[in-house]
Amino acid sequence: MKRVFIAETVKHLDKKVRVCGWVNSRRDHGGIVFLDLRDMTGVIQVVCKPESIKDVKDEYVLAIEGTIGKRPPKMINKELVTGEIELKADKIELLAESDAVPFDLRDLKLKLPTLLDYRPLTLRGEKVKAIFKVTEQVINSFRKTMKELGFTEFQAPSIVPVATEGGAEVFHIDYFDYDAYLAQSPQLYKQIMVGVFERAFTIAHAYRAEPSVTTRHLTEYISLDAEMGFISSWEELLDTCQTIVYNIISDVSQECVQECKLFGVNLHKPNNPIPRLKMRDAQEIILEMTGRDNRKEADLEPDDEKEICKWAEEKHNSEFVFITHYPTSKRPFYTFPDPENPEYTLSFDLLYKGLEIVTGGQRINDYKQLQKNIVKWGNDIKNFTFYLQAFKYGMPPEGGFALGSERIVKQMLNLESIKEASIFPRDMTRIDQRLANLQPKRAKSKDKKKK
Amino acid sequence: MKRVFIAETVKHLDKKVRVCGWVNSRRDHGGIVFLDLRDMTGVIQVVCKPESIKDVKDEYVLAIEGTIGKRPPKMINKELVTGEIELKADKIELLAESDAVPFDLRDLKLKLPTLLDYRPLTLRGEKVKAIFKVTEQVINSFRKTMKELGFTEFQAPSIVPVATEGGAEVFHIDYFDYDAYLAQSPQLYKQIMVGVFERAFTIAHAYRAEPSVTTRHLTEYISLDAEMGFISSWEELLDTCQTIVYNIISDVSQECVQECKLFGVNLHKPNNPIPRLKMRDAQEIILEMTGRDNRKEADLEPDDEKEICKWAEEKHNSEFVFITHYPTSKRPFYTFPDPENPEYTLSFDLLYKGLEIVTGGQRINDYKQLQKNIVKWGNDIKNFTFYLQAFKYGMPPEGGFALGSERIVKQMLNLESIKEASIFPRDMTRIDQRLANLQPKRAKSKDKKKK
Repeated sequence: MKRVFIAETVKHLDKKVRVCGWVNSRRDHGGIVFLDLRDMTGVIQVVCKPESIKDVKDEYVLAIEGTIGKRPPKMINKELVTGEIELKADKIELLAESDAVPFDLRDLKLKLPTLLDYRPLTLRGEKVKAIFKVTEQVINSFRKTMKELGFTEFQAPSIVPVATEGGAEVFHIDYFDYDAYLAQSPQLYKQIMVGVFERAFTIAHAYRAEPSVTTRHLTEYISLDAEMGFISSWEELLDTCQTIVYNIISDVSQECVQECKLFGVNLHKPNNPIPRLKMRDAQEIILEMTGRDNRKEADLEPDDEKEICKWAEEKHNSEFVFITHYPTSKRPFYTFPDPENPEYTLSFDLLYKGLEIVTGGQRINDYKQLQKNIVKWGNDIKNFTFYLQAFKYGMPPEGGFALGSERIVKQMLNLESIKEASIFPRDMTRIDQRLANLQPKRAKSKDKKKK
Repeated sequence: MKRVFIAETVKHLDKKVRVCGWVNSRRDHGGIVFLDLRDMTGVIQVVCKPESIKDVKDEYVLAIEGTIGKRPPKMINKELVTGEIELKADKIELLAESDAVPFDLRDLKLKLPTLLDYRPLTLRGEKVKAIFKVTEQVINSFRKTMKELGFTEFQAPSIVPVATEGGAEVFHIDYFDYDAYLAQSPQLYKQIMVGVFERAFTIAHAYRAEPSVTTRHLTEYISLDAEMGFISSWEELLDTCQTIVYNIISDVSQECVQECKLFGVNLHKPNNPIPRLKMRDAQEIILEMTGRDNRKEADLEPDDEKEICKWAEEKHNSEFVFITHYPTSKRPFYTFPDPENPEYTLSFDLLYKGLEIVTGGQRINDYKQLQKNIVKWGNDIKNFTFYLQAFKYGMPPEGGFALGSERIVKQMLNLESIKEASIFPRDMTRIDQRLANLQPKRAKSKDKKKK
C-alpha cells in the first residue's frame, strides 16, 4: 500500500490509508491508546489497541495502516490541520525502535548545553526545527532578491592560501607540503567576480578562530555576501542592503507563519527608510543618552550598539539603523576612504535590535591605491598578486556587504545565543561533541603554528 | 544621467543614454574608432572620435554618454541583441585603466595553466564565464527539484571533529588546542537531518586531500547532497536521482541556450529510463566487449566506466548508466548490505558520458547494526556517539546520494579537465597561485601529522 503524507490524510475521510512517521507522544486510556504520529508534513492522532503497540514509546518509527474517521466533537483540535480526524489503526509495522528519550522534546525551554549535546535529537523538537525553517527562508529570500537585481551566484572557495583579514583569528590547514587557511570571508573572491559578472553573490561558509565563547560568535558561520560594480555612489549599497533585509522580513512573515508564532514574533515589513548615522554622531547621541563618553573610541562597543538601536526605535520607529563612516584604521585595507575626510571610510554596519548583522562599504578600485594600502596594512604584496589581477585589468567603482545569516535569525526570533541559530554550532570548546570529552588537549609545545 | 544596461539600449533608438562597461575590443578606422563595450547584460558597438579615447584599450572601464542610432545596413550583426544599433559617443568618462592584456580574452582555446594562472582575467572571457552560468543553473535546478519533492535545505558544517571516510585523504586543521578536519562529505549530517526533516538536502563544499593531479579530482568541490527517509525500496533513490539529473539537462538546455551554443552542445532531456546494471554484470559486458577480464576487481576503473557508457549509448541510446551493487568491502561503514547477498551493497553510482557523477545508496538505519559496522570498519565508536544519536532515537529506512557539481558541468560541456569547471580550482600544486611560487615547501620532518 502506498504511503500517504499526514497532511494529505484529511482528503481520505472514511478511506484506508498507510502513514509513516515518528511517535510524538503516547497516551494510554485503559483499553485504548492514542498516539500522535509525526511526519514531515504534520501530526495525526492514531487510535490503537494496547496489545498492538506494547513497547512503543516516543520516537519509535512506525508505518500504520488504518481508516481515517472523524474525531468525536469534544476531541476536535482546531490548532491542527488534522484536528478533526483520526486514524483507526488496523496494522502497525515497526520500522525502528528508540531508546527512552532523556527529556521531553516538546519542552520549549531546554537549556543550551542540552540543546547542543543532544543536537541530533533536539533538532526534532518543533521549536528548534522552526529555527532552521526560518533560516532556510532567510537564505532563499536573500537569493531571490539578488537574482531579481541581476546578481549572479557563484561558489566561493573555503581553502585559501593566505590569511587575508588578519592573522590572529584564522584557522591553519596542513595542505600537503604547504600551509593554507580557512577563508575568513569570501571578500577577495566576490571582488574578483565583479570583474566577471559585475554583480555577484555567494552563500559562503566563513571561519573565525574566535578565542572566546560569546552569545554572538561562531567559529563557522553562514555569510550572505554580495558585491556590485558601477555603483553610482556608496549609498546605493545601503539602499540595496535595505531592500534585501526588508524582503527577508516580508518573506519570513509570509512563509513562516507557524514558525514565527512559536516564538511569539509578529513580523511586519517596515515602510520607513532605515535611519543612517555617522559613527561619531552615534557616539554623541550615546553620550547624551547615557553620559557615557566613547567619542574617542574607534568602534562601537556591544553596549553602544544596543543603545543606538534603542534611539532608532524611539526616534525613528525602526528596529534597524545604519552606522556609517568607521575610522580608516579599524577597517580592512580594501575599504574606500571618504574623500571629504580620509581618516574615515565609506563603510557601514547595519544594526538590528542591538546587534550588528551586516557589514559593508565601498572598496578601493584603483589598482595603484590598492597596492599601496596592502603594504600599508602590513601585508606581503606577493600574497595578493592573484587578487590584484582583477584591478590591474580594469575594475569599476564597486562595493558590497555581508549579512550574517545566524545573526539575522537570532535577532528575528529573539534567541538568547547565536548558537541556537546554528544547526551544528562550532566554538572553541565544541565541534558537535564537547572537544574535552572527545580527545586529549594537545600539548602546548606542539602548538607551533599559532602565533 | 542614469545608467542604462546595454541590453536595454535597443529601446532607446534616437535617444540619449549613458552606458557603463569594459572595452571588449577596439578597432581603429582612420578618423573613427569602434569600441565594443561590455556590461553584465551584453555588448554594444560604440562609435568614437580618436582624440576622445587616446589610450583606451581592452579592459578599460568607461562610462559613455551618447545617442543610440541605427547601424548602416552592411554593419548589422544578427548574432547580437544590439546588432542593429550603435552608440554615437558624445562624452567618455574613464572609470578605470587596464594594463595591456597578455592574451586575447576572446581566444577560446587558452591552455589550462594560462586559464588558471590568470583566473581573475580569464573568467571574463565569454566562454569561461559561460561555464559558471551553467554551474549556477545546475545548482538552481537541483535545488528546485529538491524543493518540489518536499526536501528541506540545510547548511552542513565543514569543520568536523573526526575523519569519517578514511584518514588518508583528509585535511587536518589546527583547532585551538585540539585537532579537527575538513569534511570529506556532509554524509553524517544529512543522515542526522533525516531524523529532523525526513527529506533534507545541502549544497556543501567537500574536501579531499587527493595526492595526485588528475583531470577528475579537486581538493575542494561542490557536492549536491540529498538524503530521504521512509524509502519504500532503495530503487526509489535511483528514481529520484534520475528525476534530478533529467531536470538538470532540461533546465540547462532552456536557461543556457547561448552558453551551450558556445560549447557546441545540444542538450535534450532523455525520455527513456536510465539503464541499471549490477557492477558484476557490467564487468561481464566489458569482458565481452574488450576481452579485458576485471571480474575479480572490487570497483570499476576509469577505463571500465568509459567502456560501459559506450555500451549504454549503443544498446540503450543513453548517455547515463546506473551501476549498482558494489562490494561491501569497498563501501563505507554506513552502506546497506544487499539482503540477498551481503557481500554486496544496495549502493549505486551514476555514470555520465564515461565519468561517475553521482554516488549513493541505502544506509543502515538499525542502531545496533550500525554500531557493529563502525567498529568492524576500524573506527573508534567514541567518535561517532553524536551521529549515532540519530539512530539511537529512531531512524526510518533511508538513503541518499551526492552529485558532483563540477563533474556534471565538465561532462555536459565536454570539458577536458574538471579544473575548468571549478571557478577557483584547488589541487595539490595550486591554491589560486601556484604554491611553489607563493611559499617555500615545508620541511618533511615538520610534516608530523600526515600518516
